[in-house]
Amino acid sequence: MSTTIIRGPEAGPERSWRHWLTGKPLATSDAPHQTLSKKVGLAVFASDALSSTAYATDEILLVLAAAGAAAFTFSLPIAISIIILLVIITVSYEQTIHAYPNGGGAYLVARDNLGSFPAQVAGAALLTDYILTVAVSISSGVAQITSAFPSMLEFRVEIALAFIAFMTLINLRGVKESGIAFAVPTYLFLGMTMVTIVYGYFQYFTGTLGTVSGVEPIHEALEGLTAFLILRAFSSGCTALTGIEAISDGITAFKEPRSRNAGITLIWMTTILSTMFFSITFLAQQTSAVPSHVQTIFSQVGAVIYGAGSVPYLALLGTTTLILVMAANTAYADFPRLAAWVAGDGFLPKQLTYRGSRLAFSYGIIVLAVVASVLVIAFQAQTSALIPLYAIGVFLSFTISQSGMAIRWWRSRKLKPGEEIKQAGSVVHYEPNWKLKLGINGFGAAMSFVVMIIFAVTKFASGAWIIVIVIPVLVVLFLQIHNHYRSLAKQLSLDTFGAPTRVRRNRVVLPIGGVHRGTLHALNFARSLSDDVTAVHVALDESEENKVRAKWETWGDGVRLVLIPSPYRALIEPMIQYIREVAAQRQPGDMLTVVVPEFLPAKPWQNILHMQTAFFLRLGLLGLRNIVIMEVPYHGDAQ
Amino acid sequence: MSTTIIRGPEAGPERSWRHWLTGKPLATSDAPHQTLSKKVGLAVFASDALSSTAYATDEILLVLAAAGAAAFTFSLPIAISIIILLVIITVSYEQTIHAYPNGGGAYLVARDNLGSFPAQVAGAALLTDYILTVAVSISSGVAQITSAFPSMLEFRVEIALAFIAFMTLINLRGVKESGIAFAVPTYLFLGMTMVTIVYGYFQYFTGTLGTVSGVEPIHEALEGLTAFLILRAFSSGCTALTGIEAISDGITAFKEPRSRNAGITLIWMTTILSTMFFSITFLAQQTSAVPSHVQTIFSQVGAVIYGAGSVPYLALLGTTTLILVMAANTAYADFPRLAAWVAGDGFLPKQLTYRGSRLAFSYGIIVLAVVASVLVIAFQAQTSALIPLYAIGVFLSFTISQSGMAIRWWRSRKLKPGEEIKQAGSVVHYEPNWKLKLGINGFGAAMSFVVMIIFAVTKFASGAWIIVIVIPVLVVLFLQIHNHYRSLAKQLSLDTFGAPTRVRRNRVVLPIGGVHRGTLHALNFARSLSDDVTAVHVALDESEENKVRAKWETWGDGVRLVLIPSPYRALIEPMIQYIREVAAQRQPGDMLTVVVPEFLPAKPWQNILHMQTAFFLRLGLLGLRNIVIMEVPYHGDAQ
Repeated sequence: MSTTIIRGPEAGPERSWRHWLTGKPLATSDAPHQTLSKKVGLAVFASDALSSTAYATDEILLVLAAAGAAAFTFSLPIAISIIILLVIITVSYEQTIHAYPNGGGAYLVARDNLGSFPAQVAGAALLTDYILTVAVSISSGVAQITSAFPSMLEFRVEIALAFIAFMTLINLRGVKESGIAFAVPTYLFLGMTMVTIVYGYFQYFTGTLGTVSGVEPIHEALEGLTAFLILRAFSSGCTALTGIEAISDGITAFKEPRSRNAGITLIWMTTILSTMFFSITFLAQQTSAVPSHVQTIFSQVGAVIYGAGSVPYLALLGTTTLILVMAANTAYADFPRLAAWVAGDGFLPKQLTYRGSRLAFSYGIIVLAVVASVLVIAFQAQTSALIPLYAIGVFLSFTISQSGMAIRWWRSRKLKPGEEIKQAGSVVHYEPNWKLKLGINGFGAAMSFVVMIIFAVTKFASGAWIIVIVIPVLVVLFLQIHNHYRSLAKQLSLDTFGAPTRVRRNRVVLPIGGVHRGTLHALNFARSLSDDVTAVHVALDESEENKVRAKWETWGDGVRLVLIPSPYRALIEPMIQYIREVAAQRQPGDMLTVVVPEFLPAKPWQNILHMQTAFFLRLGLLGLRNIVIMEVPYHGDAQ
Repeated sequence: MSTTIIRGPEAGPERSWRHWLTGKPLATSDAPHQTLSKKVGLAVFASDALSSTAYATDEILLVLAAAGAAAFTFSLPIAISIIILLVIITVSYEQTIHAYPNGGGAYLVARDNLGSFPAQVAGAALLTDYILTVAVSISSGVAQITSAFPSMLEFRVEIALAFIAFMTLINLRGVKESGIAFAVPTYLFLGMTMVTIVYGYFQYFTGTLGTVSGVEPIHEALEGLTAFLILRAFSSGCTALTGIEAISDGITAFKEPRSRNAGITLIWMTTILSTMFFSITFLAQQTSAVPSHVQTIFSQVGAVIYGAGSVPYLALLGTTTLILVMAANTAYADFPRLAAWVAGDGFLPKQLTYRGSRLAFSYGIIVLAVVASVLVIAFQAQTSALIPLYAIGVFLSFTISQSGMAIRWWRSRKLKPGEEIKQAGSVVHYEPNWKLKLGINGFGAAMSFVVMIIFAVTKFASGAWIIVIVIPVLVVLFLQIHNHYRSLAKQLSLDTFGAPTRVRRNRVVLPIGGVHRGTLHALNFARSLSDDVTAVHVALDESEENKVRAKWETWGDGVRLVLIPSPYRALIEPMIQYIREVAAQRQPGDMLTVVVPEFLPAKPWQNILHMQTAFFLRLGLLGLRNIVIMEVPYHGDAQ
């Protein structure tokens, strides 16, 4: 017999109140195919990295404060070391960008060169860090606002949560990375910060640069200026490096030749980031800025240069807040996309691969928003409290990604020109300079690894331990999920499946609470399913039993009725007991169907006037195999 | 064809962790049939009424305090007026007890003589008041404890909630009104209070009675000693009358001749209550006791007579706390029983008639405990804050009950000896003294009504307005519930029901997400239900569509497949849309069954890895009539 397959009309866009918030649904074919110039690409991908200059200096000084104000002189050497590290990692990433013109995120590079397990580690690390990016950037953005308006300090958690809610909504609308939306705030921030720096240097060289006054510094328990403290300050400052991997993730968004354009943009970004980070740290030192929970370093330096409350001062803090919020937005782009990749490989729930009505990965966006909000509440939107959790994930992913590249060059060592090795997701070509490239990526990997260890050790007690636990737990979870999907696929596979066995016999059990029209309606339905129907009634007392018996004799129409006396007045339990016994007696190929007459009142509140038997039966039979429970509704008229 | 009816074996007692708390299940036949002597009956039914002497004097003085300490001289005349009212109501209730030997609660008397609506008003009033009995008695009991140990004052809400939780548990265990449990605390309290009163009188007459010192009186905004204030004090004191209806509710529990025994017990109770209330008020006046939020009058009088902290002082407060908690317990007996009656008449959810495994009306007990706890929290366990809500319900139910009795005598006026009128629940006999009896009950009704109005007016602003709103709202709710059950009974009734119509045709729709073993299992099941099966697949993109099409051609075994392309990536909505269209095309007598293949993972956490299609389909098809949705489970192996 030939199979009829009908192709129905296309489903139209879904209608829902949610679209009032998120906009009209978009068809799959509406996906944007636009590419970005270098200038716009810088704005789109660099906001995360550049914005970290808004808190990196603060974090260095916060740690050094423990050894007294004299230790602040170390901030500049520390900043310079971090910039050197930045250059090393940038050079290392340049190579990735050229080797992976279709996108070289740590997850993909690791999966391709190192295999599934390291890729999952990188995935867990990055997903954790994207969540922290949102929490840290938004908290720091709120800190800029409260620096200018200290009276809002007590509402900082609420303001941060409002920002997260706003970002979530915007991203559920699926704003395309349209460039302009990013370019304006990024370049405003760049412009404003550069003007401030240049004007600050001018004041410095002309001897008119003032000093910070009236800021209450943080009082920490004093400790000696140990190497450990310096390393701790260094690792805090390394948060400036978060976000630099964004360009290598997004190569495909660039105009052709995309690898070249992305590479140049990366160099621009590193140059700007280095300049800004160095200058802010330098000016902070010259103006004697102090770490504080009330005023950020940006605010202190800006106030000295422009005067507190002046228009340029407010413009500086305003654009900084803006860029910090944009930085959170890059996490909103990256987290759902990475989660969808991981889910696509079967290591996270498949739902994460599902694009919502506006083509955004809705589930991922919501998970990100919820977890980041929990973090903001738990850490009271304190940037410096979140910092110890941050950056471990980034450096772990740097390490894995650069190691993957190193392995790749190592594999290419024996190739002759024109030869190639096919890998899972890319092709390894002949590379004359493989030794140099291996050296660069190897050195990058080693440095990232060392920084990660320094970070984990020096920050362990103040919060890094959380991440040291969370990342392995996530990896184990990913692997469990993967096992589940893999075994499921095997179970469901038709490859080794013979002819499907027919259902031989369907026993139908019909629990009844009385004999009335609803019951008879369900009885009719039950008889249309099978000839083997048994009605079952649990009787609480004899008079009830006799009533049901008499009525069944009139209306039961020959169907078997089992009466179960229940002297302990239990209703559901004896029914479940009976069904379990029937289920145990089945032969292979027998199905058991429980048909529950269910009264559906016209008004929902009326539900509390009824016993919800079906719900409790379902609950009680949970875990019993090959049993089908169905409610046959009987509808109440209005009132 | 003759109907087979099988009587299965009796269901055994249910096993549950809950029984660790509430005790082993009891069979219906275990219900107690014990009857009480007058002495034990007094203990069981009088604890509520007698315990109110522990706060009634306090409440009178609290109101009078507003006119300055000089106004306290009015407390004794007010107490005497209340005692006169008590005697009137007692005489009135004597008649009820003899007319209703099977229990003469306000609800039953009203239903029998006045009809359903007044009965529901009485029911709403009493249910409200029982809840308040728990809140007031427990709060006052806690106040006795904190009088002796002021350091526990700040934990009074917690202590009160702990008492309520304890009482709830005890009552869920279904403690039989076994007499001893009640007799001991009641007689301890009676004994201790009587000794205190007698010793107090002795001190008074020998001139050795001291005066209260060191108690900070409540500072109220001073107002003049108006008639309104006196009436307010009077209505506050009327809380002493709450609980006197308990004996007439519980006549059946007395030994035969039960009416006579119950009547005598009522007179005892009134005598004791009058004596105690008068004496406490008198001694309070003589010792210059002052109303206070820190020390109760009982505590102050006891401290003057025995010395603060002495053993008899602590014994007085201890037994008082005990009797107050016992008073709350009578509400635990009365509320669930009355709620079950009202529910049995179809004015409250039927679940309230259901006796739990220990034969107690579990739902009623839980409702009482939850609402009383909310009150205790909302009013911070302050007795005097709860008093304005209290007693309106009692006096409303007195009014209705006595009016019912008056109507009853009025009906009997034309009967000759031996004649009778049958009523819904009782028989009206010839009564030679009907005029006197009508007069007594009429006067009782009138007095109760006047007191209720005085109470509502004088306490309106301080809280009585809540009850003035709540009782009518409850009555409306009762009537709505009744309408629902009545219309349901009519809809389900088989009286006008012809031969049940057979299901003519059953269309089966099988939504599939792919073609795999789970789908084919469900397909098999669907085909065992009907020959008219249509599989439906919503395809998000073309490649998926082609895959499903190809697989169905191999495995679909001739069953029709409808493919719905969904360019907006909606999955559930197009499916719901399709099912709604099929549903709309049905002929009368056609059933529509939706068979949803559902993967049931071996471990519950794995559920979040799946789409829960069945759940969302069910939600989306809610309200569509005559449609049966069933999940056909496909079980995952344990990983």
